[in-house]
Amino acid sequence: MTRTVVHNFGVSLDGFGTGVGLSRDAPFGHAGTRLLSWLIETPTFRDMTGHEGHAHGSSSHLDDVFARRHEIGVGAEIMGAHKFGPPGWHEDPDWTGWWGEDPPFHTPVFVLTHHPRASLELAGGNVFHFVDASPQHALELAAEAAGGQDVRIGGGPSILRDFLAADLVDDMHVAVVPILLGRGVRLWDGLEGIEERFDIEQTRSASGVVHTTFTRRPR
Amino acid sequence: MTRTVVHNFGVSLDGFGTGVGLSRDAPFGHAGTRLLSWLIETPTFRDMTGHEGHAHGSSSHLDDVFARRHEIGVGAEIMGAHKFGPPGWHEDPDWTGWWGEDPPFHTPVFVLTHHPRASLELAGGNVFHFVDASPQHALELAAEAAGGQDVRIGGGPSILRDFLAADLVDDMHVAVVPILLGRGVRLWDGLEGIEERFDIEQTRSASGVVHTTFTRRPR
Repeated sequence: MTRTVVHNFGVSLDGFGTGVGLSRDAPFGHAGTRLLSWLIETPTFRDMTGHEGHAHGSSSHLDDVFARRHEIGVGAEIMGAHKFGPPGWHEDPDWTGWWGEDPPFHTPVFVLTHHPRASLELAGGNVFHFVDASPQHALELAAEAAGGQDVRIGGGPSILRDFLAADLVDDMHVAVVPILLGRGVRLWDGLEGIEERFDIEQTRSASGVVHTTFTRRPR
Repeated sequence: MTRTVVHNFGVSLDGFGTGVGLSRDAPFGHAGTRLLSWLIETPTFRDMTGHEGHAHGSSSHLDDVFARRHEIGVGAEIMGAHKFGPPGWHEDPDWTGWWGEDPPFHTPVFVLTHHPRASLELAGGNVFHFVDASPQHALELAAEAAGGQDVRIGGGPSILRDFLAADLVDDMHVAVVPILLGRGVRLWDGLEGIEERFDIEQTRSASGVVHTTFTRRPR
């Protein structure tokens, strides 16, 4: 059965999933890479992206256990327009995402945008489809493309919030990072009471983040 | 040396320190007792208040370790008007707080209010002073009254935020409760970057809350 899953989504202690001032040079705005530093340093992320890590990496083994799930059992991803590119990318016909020739998805990816364009096929099984669709409709498309595997909601925070509000998420992993961004896009707004739909577990990693999992209770 | 401390302050995963709809029957509004349930069930809280706990208490030993700190080394408390009473309490000359004849403070308490009144002395060393003062001025008054012991900032969230913004907190314990209140008074607003002033530790309790301590780095 296809489930809807979220992996490795970083959120600040004050609830922001990204910062302000997003641009081509600052994909997360003033947040920089701080919501992902625990992830960037993992062996999984390095294998996946070729990123060499910082001189003094701060990820833990537990971080890598969570990071690794990104590669398991996912048949399609849904992402918001702000994950695919900086503000205005839809006016640039040559924009192909942040990830170069071989993005780390290796599945069909459905980009939710009010500016659909022709699908884009890159190396490694990465095919981006641009659709102006509701969460429900996007999930139908992605589930069909996933061929029985799971559908990942890749973020950003607005899209993830929409899917949570529509009760379309089965299994979510959020890493709460002990920083206060103060400004940005809030993940948790408008989600009063959703904890009643989930079993929630929290585990602190040696890197300082609190891995938080939401597991959908049986309906 | 007098330090400024915060103990046992509950905040929801989405950052609210209290709910909406505060009233005499609902001191925390729609939040009810959910931000404090880990505390209410502890032996410390029962000893302190005579509260008998629920039939199926859910506090852990670790929760009690934190709860117990409330009683150690504090010589005065500062609280906001919303902690002392429901909206409009200042129009009721007979209002003496939520806590009956023997409140659990046993020290001078400075209530920040725009409606000062004469000081109120109750049993057990509880003396309430009502002052219209800035955080800095209130802290001077409380530090003098504390006689070399610590000053506790008792909340609510607006007052705590003001003291954090003014960089007047040395040692803070916040219990992050895995619920989404959706509405209420946010603790973390306007505090961008304060993590740089603190060492932050987080530990999950078996009751499900994440005890989060902020320890001021040397200035």
